Amino acid sequence: MEKPIGIFDSGMGGLTVLAELRRTLPDEDFIYLGDTARVPYGSRSARTVERYSLEVADYLMQQGVKMLVIACNTATAHAYKSLRQKLPVPVVGVIEPGVAALLRATKNRRVGIIGTRSTIRSGSYEQALKAHDPELSVFSKACPLFVPLIEEGWMDKKITALVIEEYLSEMVREEIDSIVLGCTHYPLLRPAIQKIYPDLQLIDSSVEVARSVARELLERKLQHIEKRERGKLRILLTDVTDQLRQLEQLFLGMTVEHLEEVQIDPHA
Amino acid sequence: MEKPIGIFDSGMGGLTVLAELRRTLPDEDFIYLGDTARVPYGSRSARTVERYSLEVADYLMQQGVKMLVIACNTATAHAYKSLRQKLPVPVVGVIEPGVAALLRATKNRRVGIIGTRSTIRSGSYEQALKAHDPELSVFSKACPLFVPLIEEGWMDKKITALVIEEYLSEMVREEIDSIVLGCTHYPLLRPAIQKIYPDLQLIDSSVEVARSVARELLERKLQHIEKRERGKLRILLTDVTDQLRQLEQLFLGMTVEHLEEVQIDPHA
Repeated sequence: MEKPIGIFDSGMGGLTVLAELRRTLPDEDFIYLGDTARVPYGSRSARTVERYSLEVADYLMQQGVKMLVIACNTATAHAYKSLRQKLPVPVVGVIEPGVAALLRATKNRRVGIIGTRSTIRSGSYEQALKAHDPELSVFSKACPLFVPLIEEGWMDKKITALVIEEYLSEMVREEIDSIVLGCTHYPLLRPAIQKIYPDLQLIDSSVEVARSVARELLERKLQHIEKRERGKLRILLTDVTDQLRQLEQLFLGMTVEHLEEVQIDPHA
Repeated sequence: MEKPIGIFDSGMGGLTVLAELRRTLPDEDFIYLGDTARVPYGSRSARTVERYSLEVADYLMQQGVKMLVIACNTATAHAYKSLRQKLPVPVVGVIEPGVAALLRATKNRRVGIIGTRSTIRSGSYEQALKAHDPELSVFSKACPLFVPLIEEGWMDKKITALVIEEYLSEMVREEIDSIVLGCTHYPLLRPAIQKIYPDLQLIDSSVEVARSVARELLERKLQHIEKRERGKLRILLTDVTDQLRQLEQLFLGMTVEHLEEVQIDPHA
């Protein structure tokens, strides 16, 4: 039996990455776990985010995944290293692919990073960027209002435009030319941000993540062999509410027949 | 040894209730537990909120509390009944006191309720109000942007005024005369709401909760006997981040010397 690729996020935002993975790798089976009973990771401490991520990864390993994709910037920031060390399967995070894309995009070597409080506080993007190019000027900003605005579906409202300016105007004044959308929700704000700042290059790392995963599968000879129309998809959530069906449509562009609710046992 | 009063919330918002309790009952000892590792409860399912609330209450019972105050509207909506049944100590929630205050405040019997998605979805306020007065016209609205706006400290910004109008204009057009602030964060938005709608009566249930607790202590002869300057206060959190110090100042009006981090064992 072919094994699925495991992918997890603190909630539903990682579905934007899943959607991209399915476009790039239509033959593969995927199992997505959203830790909706403990979302958002973005406002929590590094230690708690690491603990939650390890618990979720253990659960997916028990489901027999052949590879793990961390489709959450905060979890990548705080748990990528531990997961690489501990898991017997390849692990792909969202930060390195985003960093690679940002480095290719910038012309003036002045770049921006936006994300949750916890991702920004971690300094993970800065460290990865500086490791590649110590001379880069990096400006970062936590944007905690973006996720709830997106989840309200207010992408086109004047309120959202004002919040975007509130968060980004300072780094735009610093003449950055590219910015990485360092949270899997943010690609949904792309049109609204681009409308206000048409010259800014907005990096959505999900495309780059899908490429990394495809490359890794190939190198490790883990690709799905048999050709078919479309691989299987399971979506597991640790808490299911009415609102999630709407978010699923928003982030994944489709509705899955059955959202499975699972409980993660921290003592497993 | 005198026993403390236990008080819990999903996070830091319940500190507004704690502040009021300490003003009303300066002799009492308090132990506050904020479940910051799993905040917010307001976007979760009823079942998950109930489970988390029971775990938190168990933890406080192990600390030897003489009474439990649920300083969280969402937890009151979903766990008040279970906690009343299961705990051997008196339990006070925030909904009944808020309902009593709202019923006293309204002249035209057209009232509003605002809160988290989960509180509004529960219909708890409506049910309690209708039980007292079946003829009341009740309008309710979930306001999920209010908490992150408050936690950003944006109470005076134009963005916040726009969000307030977005959420409240419809029920104001329905000519409500009073509205209950059905989330412990919301009292901090009181000045901003009052500025836009000066004629609206805004009900902050924490004053009423403190009165209920005082009455209950008296009836059950549980008051602290010995007179003193000020009772003891312990603040326990399930996750401690830098941001919490700022919220503590915002909600409690003071900084506590030591925030204790505790882990709640769901299998206790």
